Amino acid sequence: MFNVKSKMNSGFGNLQGGLFSKIEKADVGDGVAKLLSSGVDILGWADPFFPDPSIPEKVKKVMISALEEGKVSHYSLPIGRPELRAEIAKKISRQTGLDINPSRNVIVTPGSDSGLLYALMPFISEGDEVLVPKPSYPSNFLNPKLLGGKTVEVPLYDEDNYAFRIDEFEKRVTSRTKVVLITHPNNPTTTVFRKENLIKLCDFVKKHDLILVSDQAFEDHIFDGIEFVSPATIEGMWERTLTVCSISKGIGLSGFRIGYIYASDEIMEVLYGGAVNVLGAASTLSSIGAEAIINDVEYLDEVFEKLERRRDLVNEVFKDTPGISFRPSESGILTWINVSKLGKSDDIANYLLKEANVLVNSGVPYGMEGYLRIVTACIADDDKARAVFEKMRNAFIKKYYELK
Amino acid sequence: MFNVKSKMNSGFGNLQGGLFSKIEKADVGDGVAKLLSSGVDILGWADPFFPDPSIPEKVKKVMISALEEGKVSHYSLPIGRPELRAEIAKKISRQTGLDINPSRNVIVTPGSDSGLLYALMPFISEGDEVLVPKPSYPSNFLNPKLLGGKTVEVPLYDEDNYAFRIDEFEKRVTSRTKVVLITHPNNPTTTVFRKENLIKLCDFVKKHDLILVSDQAFEDHIFDGIEFVSPATIEGMWERTLTVCSISKGIGLSGFRIGYIYASDEIMEVLYGGAVNVLGAASTLSSIGAEAIINDVEYLDEVFEKLERRRDLVNEVFKDTPGISFRPSESGILTWINVSKLGKSDDIANYLLKEANVLVNSGVPYGMEGYLRIVTACIADDDKARAVFEKMRNAFIKKYYELK
Repeated sequence: MFNVKSKMNSGFGNLQGGLFSKIEKADVGDGVAKLLSSGVDILGWADPFFPDPSIPEKVKKVMISALEEGKVSHYSLPIGRPELRAEIAKKISRQTGLDINPSRNVIVTPGSDSGLLYALMPFISEGDEVLVPKPSYPSNFLNPKLLGGKTVEVPLYDEDNYAFRIDEFEKRVTSRTKVVLITHPNNPTTTVFRKENLIKLCDFVKKHDLILVSDQAFEDHIFDGIEFVSPATIEGMWERTLTVCSISKGIGLSGFRIGYIYASDEIMEVLYGGAVNVLGAASTLSSIGAEAIINDVEYLDEVFEKLERRRDLVNEVFKDTPGISFRPSESGILTWINVSKLGKSDDIANYLLKEANVLVNSGVPYGMEGYLRIVTACIADDDKARAVFEKMRNAFIKKYYELK
Repeated sequence: MFNVKSKMNSGFGNLQGGLFSKIEKADVGDGVAKLLSSGVDILGWADPFFPDPSIPEKVKKVMISALEEGKVSHYSLPIGRPELRAEIAKKISRQTGLDINPSRNVIVTPGSDSGLLYALMPFISEGDEVLVPKPSYPSNFLNPKLLGGKTVEVPLYDEDNYAFRIDEFEKRVTSRTKVVLITHPNNPTTTVFRKENLIKLCDFVKKHDLILVSDQAFEDHIFDGIEFVSPATIEGMWERTLTVCSISKGIGLSGFRIGYIYASDEIMEVLYGGAVNVLGAASTLSSIGAEAIINDVEYLDEVFEKLERRRDLVNEVFKDTPGISFRPSESGILTWINVSKLGKSDDIANYLLKEANVLVNSGVPYGMEGYLRIVTACIADDDKARAVFEKMRNAFIKKYYELK
């Protein structure tokens, strides 16, 4: 009997989560499609306002007009349409103050997931190590392994509000360490790493002559006036940092599949060189849509207000709920809730699905037992969202009293 | 001075073709954008009817309606929308007779370029070897190296009409050989590998217990009644073959970025498991457009007729042109021309750009000095295409008499 897994490298050969795995991955396979059609509220899909309409009129207009013209059947450049790169450069400069050349420092990726892998690819040879803070986005733990490397988890602590502890990094650095891979603001915790904390991390990166990959998918919406610093702007970091971004979380256009990486000319030389092979190109029509909106500050402010209002709604509904605890989100579209008094993450997630008809994410794939990740910006209408949150609160309360 | 290349693996560290390379890659960077705006006819972009409108009305209609509804802002599943996978399964069954389960044997990729790399990724560890016939699609030579493997070129010969010579494969197989990677029909030569020839190749693959990756981007249009056989249908090959396809070349929707891989459940288990990490997802709106057309046999026949007429036009115009020789294309949208009597590939490509204002591909990146690859299905209108071909013919003739 032919065993195809015996032909595979260890990264893929050990993959969990596919067809035959016992692990149910909500965001792979047909699971979500089935749940949606059965009326479950999906708060486990990091996609603002899902599943409701959320394309700005202006974007619809330019895309419909491009469709009618009929030329978006054709490829855009593998590194990204020049018009889109120009808008992205403008966005980066607006957000960071960096002077970005759209033909030398920006590459478009078909979503930030492929961007995240691509940012790592050039730096990993078999056995190389990548330091990944934990909790983090699950792909950050898996990606180094898919490339033949090794993931070295570096714990963050709830009591620190999940800031970096540099001594935990120092303890784990070896001669094989190549990259530090962070998600900033962090997913699932929404933590915005503070400037002083980032400077210390960057000192560590420079001291050990490493590369930093910074996943900034959630950078567009930072609450409570917290200062957001892109590590590429920190002294000595530009030449060793790849910053991976997207228009999914910030602008609410996940389905368009437009992400981007910014980096130095020397790094981009290589990313441009492999663009056809690794990325192909982004959708031409999506690119045209993205061009129209990513620097529309008025629209972005509108999204920000919606997300801030949602954040406040979450705090209002879940405040003082017995059995759970959480911090107000610092950024984006998520809420990270400690449910350890009620049970294990997976059990409580399953309980919510049955009791409240709501799908949320267990904290386990993010690296933390006892927590849930809730995509609280799902569902466009605040009243509908409130009703779902209240169902969840009631379920938490019920569980709490059952256990008492 | 920080040298970022010293941090890279050999696959990426040696990449040519990016920002600072002397090699001008037409399909990367801003080169094409500049050429297009300067009025050059681009026949170097494997994109049927480029740059003219080519979206079927039916596709426009469903996409405009989806845009108006406003929900295509949201993610589709990382393995592909269920509706699209169902249509793809139907297409594969229609073309091959295979019984394809859309939830077990198909994964959607954002274009076939990322699909081609993904099909190789699980099988390559550092130092593993991939046999690649030459000439072939340039990515096939580079992809194994980007994954830490080694590309072993296996020559094909013009005098064989570029069929596989199995003894050339046998000479190069080692204990590190893992994969045979073919493009079928071949790009750039348009060769449809004949059934008997494929059976021999598959016997070789089975004998040495290898994996076959078959890039079938050009499979939709086969001329002169030549039988097209998908190697996955050959006995004993299903469990060891990954077939990589797209809607770019066949249906003329390159800019949509929709490709797909089909394979056994055991292989798909792994590709599904890494889908979020490697692929992300395809554009939701593009997926909806693709669903509407990929089994519309009437429309596909119409495209076929256009491409066949174009093939015949090429034969008519270039026939008996002194200094060049070529075979009528067996498939798709390309013509492969021997210009070795006129000069080196690069020189003749540059000459055509200056003399006839036409961009074509040098044969060198495809592995053959002395040849040009021309995307003869570019430009929608036959008369306009004829005019461009005639400019090229005149340039060939001029060169021929200059050299005499």
